Amino acid sequence: MHWLIKTLTRVSKSTTNKSKIDTLLFSRHFTSVAAAETAELGPTKTGEKPRVVVLGSGWAGCRLMKDIDTSIYDVVCVSPRNHMVFTPLLASTCVGTLEFRSVAEHIGRIQPAISTEPGSYLFLANCTALDTQKHQVHCQTVSDGLAKLDPRKFRISYDKLIIASGAEASTFGINGVKEHAIFLREVHDAQEIRRKLLLNLMMSDVPGVSDEEKRRLLHCVVVGGGPTGVEFSGELSDFITRDVHQRYSHVKDYIHVTLIEANEILSSFDDRLRKYATKQLTKSGVRLVRGIVKDVQPQNIVLTDGTTVPYGLLVWSTGVGPSPFVQALDIPKAPGGRIGVDEWLRVPSVPDVFSIGDCCGYLESTGKPTLPALAQVAERQGLYLAKVLNMMGKAGGGYANAAGEMELGKPFVYKHLGSMATVGRYKALVDLRQSKEGKGLSLAGFVSWFIWRSAYFSRLVSWRNKLYVAVNWATTGAFGRDISRL
Amino acid sequence: MHWLIKTLTRVSKSTTNKSKIDTLLFSRHFTSVAAAETAELGPTKTGEKPRVVVLGSGWAGCRLMKDIDTSIYDVVCVSPRNHMVFTPLLASTCVGTLEFRSVAEHIGRIQPAISTEPGSYLFLANCTALDTQKHQVHCQTVSDGLAKLDPRKFRISYDKLIIASGAEASTFGINGVKEHAIFLREVHDAQEIRRKLLLNLMMSDVPGVSDEEKRRLLHCVVVGGGPTGVEFSGELSDFITRDVHQRYSHVKDYIHVTLIEANEILSSFDDRLRKYATKQLTKSGVRLVRGIVKDVQPQNIVLTDGTTVPYGLLVWSTGVGPSPFVQALDIPKAPGGRIGVDEWLRVPSVPDVFSIGDCCGYLESTGKPTLPALAQVAERQGLYLAKVLNMMGKAGGGYANAAGEMELGKPFVYKHLGSMATVGRYKALVDLRQSKEGKGLSLAGFVSWFIWRSAYFSRLVSWRNKLYVAVNWATTGAFGRDISRL
Repeated sequence: MHWLIKTLTRVSKSTTNKSKIDTLLFSRHFTSVAAAETAELGPTKTGEKPRVVVLGSGWAGCRLMKDIDTSIYDVVCVSPRNHMVFTPLLASTCVGTLEFRSVAEHIGRIQPAISTEPGSYLFLANCTALDTQKHQVHCQTVSDGLAKLDPRKFRISYDKLIIASGAEASTFGINGVKEHAIFLREVHDAQEIRRKLLLNLMMSDVPGVSDEEKRRLLHCVVVGGGPTGVEFSGELSDFITRDVHQRYSHVKDYIHVTLIEANEILSSFDDRLRKYATKQLTKSGVRLVRGIVKDVQPQNIVLTDGTTVPYGLLVWSTGVGPSPFVQALDIPKAPGGRIGVDEWLRVPSVPDVFSIGDCCGYLESTGKPTLPALAQVAERQGLYLAKVLNMMGKAGGGYANAAGEMELGKPFVYKHLGSMATVGRYKALVDLRQSKEGKGLSLAGFVSWFIWRSAYFSRLVSWRNKLYVAVNWATTGAFGRDISRL
Repeated sequence: MHWLIKTLTRVSKSTTNKSKIDTLLFSRHFTSVAAAETAELGPTKTGEKPRVVVLGSGWAGCRLMKDIDTSIYDVVCVSPRNHMVFTPLLASTCVGTLEFRSVAEHIGRIQPAISTEPGSYLFLANCTALDTQKHQVHCQTVSDGLAKLDPRKFRISYDKLIIASGAEASTFGINGVKEHAIFLREVHDAQEIRRKLLLNLMMSDVPGVSDEEKRRLLHCVVVGGGPTGVEFSGELSDFITRDVHQRYSHVKDYIHVTLIEANEILSSFDDRLRKYATKQLTKSGVRLVRGIVKDVQPQNIVLTDGTTVPYGLLVWSTGVGPSPFVQALDIPKAPGGRIGVDEWLRVPSVPDVFSIGDCCGYLESTGKPTLPALAQVAERQGLYLAKVLNMMGKAGGGYANAAGEMELGKPFVYKHLGSMATVGRYKALVDLRQSKEGKGLSLAGFVSWFIWRSAYFSRLVSWRNKLYVAVNWATTGAFGRDISRL
């Protein structure tokens, strides 16, 4: 026998020395305490870099982390997920056109410092409260459904705090939405949609299921006619035409997609593009219904006109509103309940606090309108604020209360670059006008679809994901979508 | 406005005619009944093809379905999953060397008839009972955790029944194994391991976690030194060396892998190869511990010698035993509790019933030893039985009770082609001896690793998965593994 029969007693002895070293290594940042309630990452000391704490890992927070100068700052990110979601391509993952991992980017790939620098961290946690007096945030680790974890509480001191925690899907207080509908904002939402769609396709084929029940199970209802709702409907109808007809031929005639919108679909787009989208969706079999949802029951939704719509899958994408965390913050708000910021994206009532992305809005005193909850707004704000912070840090204003009345340069100005949306295979809309009333190029059709793919493809952060998106697109084209239900 | 404001009332009117057509189309096979309890796929009628019902979608069942002649038979598969798992590569998915979808193959890709032929089906269900008198199986649909489904019961009449439902991970009746350990048999097991491993890596980095707790959270314990346990340990140690050190540098010194085995690791392999594996594993940091587990608690396992081993992740792979379904079957068993079969893989006590794969074993009357629970045994049995059934069908014996005393040709003979296992990056074992005592080639090292990769690569069923496995291997090599926690 060549391998030693080691006992774990010996093993644990051998690690005692290492543990001393580890304690030395880590004591610089972590107050070593037995009671977890007092756990904290304390204020930065002389000789340490100032600490930027970023709440959230969406477009705003990740762009800021990408561009922040880590030779000036330590970066600490607090987020319930360890990746950024490339949201414009999320709808494609629900039916398997793209894979989930192709649209998720680990934050460590966006800002490597969080996994390599001794003073930078990524904590899988939610922020529960702000103590702006003490320059601290209170956090709690995520409790995973599977692992039955007890959440841990801890505090982080910040020199600069960036609230980029995003918004939450609006339900308009409609009963049953949270319980029965699926939103389309995170990778786990897309996973749930894919699992449920494939389950319903299989369940409708089981002996004893009535025709009426088959039709209900396979009725996919999308509420909300914005870009997400439209793109998802388009993907779904393409999935039905190309994959369901071939691979679920027993039940193919029972599956239908209905898109319910209270007003017009794609209301921010050019009139001509809207008409094109409407025509394309209808042509590909999507029923467009104008209506307002009143109540959501486990198998039916009820519209305000009294119509009952049976469904098997219900996807809800009617826009976003402030999250409970933002609602609970005791700081002046912008119209719509967002965190109020000035033209430099500062929260003016408290020092060293900034807010970017869907969770912030201009204070009424700025006289500026609220910006739309779009990826491009969030990303531009992250980029702008990273520059401001870098400038501030270089000028010695990086530490808590050190910036004082420092001049921040030009305020943030948003220039809309245009909007895009796909409406199924080889069809998309590109609206390059700067505002709804403005003039400019607007395109629909194959060229737009090509622009849509190229534009998002070029924006994907890592080469790894670029490669996977390309391979996904190629295999979906060549072999069809994968319908394994994992 | 270009799009019509349709009401769903109109829509449902327009589908009434279609529903009549559907009823006609489907009435051939489904007894249209209101009460689901009496739902069934009734006996095949004159003019219909005989129906082969396959329970399970593992190596045995899928190989049989692949090779069965669908011009002779209709195929109905009953399985709780809609895909086959390429088990030899499953361990690689736990740490992200390969992606989950790369090792899962939809059954419709293996046998397209199940999704296209009107008399062939795939039911996402478990078989609950056999009625061999009536030539029927009783089934119940899977109830998905997410969807809160009421399971549906239905019955399927068979002309030929193939029980290929596999075996279950053995726990040896040890307390706490099912509750706290993760097996490594299905894609969802691998997903759970990956999520838990990444969660533990992040949780150990949170302020206030003591060194002892860090060490526990990051202690990965594998119980069982067979090929699966060894390969998983090897993958894990490679993940630690290549990815954890780089991407989780704060906690990299706390992570360890321990492999616990009661006897020798890789006991079926050549002595020289075992020594090589032991050396390689030890070199890559895997602690090999000889011990027997007595009790599994939420954070500790207790060995029979009294040692307590704290763990953060516990993977259990100590072989398989008969499933509760097989145990409950009222038919003569083979040694070890498997379904007893004769040399033609028939269950001799009942007509038209066969069994293949891990759930079957030779009856003592055959005088043959039980075959090992290996993919190659199962696959060869599936291939053999498909040929027998095709031959039987051509000779007019495909229908229930029609085969009578038909001559089945040569009995099934198993010839072992050899065993393979990887022990980390660029290292593998290949043992081409036909039995433990036999003579033959045995290799260890890079060439073996190359053979290992090539052999499994060439066996992957679809081109799609071949491409994805190749791309996964390439990107893991070039960019490292993906550590997004989805």
